[in-house]
Amino acid sequence: MMNNIAIAKQAFDYFSHGLASGEWDNFLAMLTEDFTFSFPIAPFQGRNIGKDKAERFFNYVSTQVFTEGLYLTVERITSNETTVVFEVQSQGLMSGNPYQNQAAISFDVRDNLICGYREYLSFIYSR
Amino acid sequence: MMNNIAIAKQAFDYFSHGLASGEWDNFLAMLTEDFTFSFPIAPFQGRNIGKDKAERFFNYVSTQVFTEGLYLTVERITSNETTVVFEVQSQGLMSGNPYQNQAAISFDVRDNLICGYREYLSFIYSR
Repeated sequence: MMNNIAIAKQAFDYFSHGLASGEWDNFLAMLTEDFTFSFPIAPFQGRNIGKDKAERFFNYVSTQVFTEGLYLTVERITSNETTVVFEVQSQGLMSGNPYQNQAAISFDVRDNLICGYREYLSFIYSR
Repeated sequence: MMNNIAIAKQAFDYFSHGLASGEWDNFLAMLTEDFTFSFPIAPFQGRNIGKDKAERFFNYVSTQVFTEGLYLTVERITSNETTVVFEVQSQGLMSGNPYQNQAAISFDVRDNLICGYREYLSFIYSR
């Protein structure tokens, strides 16, 4: 169980680095092939399946939305045996405009990899 | 620690009952006077402070938004020593229209009461 928390924290560090820098390789390397993710906003709104789709999603985020980086501050971490939830503050520029939000980011761990990711937002900004 | 989880689960049952029925007394009785809550949508968007404001908020939800009840299904619970997060599916009618969402609902526990509540949503529907 501690191991799953440590794995989720490592993945979250890579995720956070990806949002800040656009470098997603380390995070993507920690995903299962059947990785599924849910996101609130189009064009990836709803449930998405597959590591390939995840790669397209995270590259889209970094090249089209947060091109100058999004910076996360972790406020709280909760967990059970397979899931770790990070409550975060986020700050950056979205398409050039100041952006600030809170989110709950939930990672599921299986076999030392991340098999699920759900993001819930405190505010939704239209683009 | 187990005690805090049990308290949060009891409060969540009352919260869920409040959304379904409009009866909020049991939930409100479990809130600290300085209870703070964050919600994604106007007119209570952002951070709100005080049990009085919470009472207005939950009555607003039941009399103006989910007048026929909103029904939650818990998918996952994570926790640490003071916070319990419930990932849920919600279903009902919002202002008469079919409504379905996923949410992360985070409760902070202090002295056997709920002192904080943050809601994060998977989709935001405009009303």
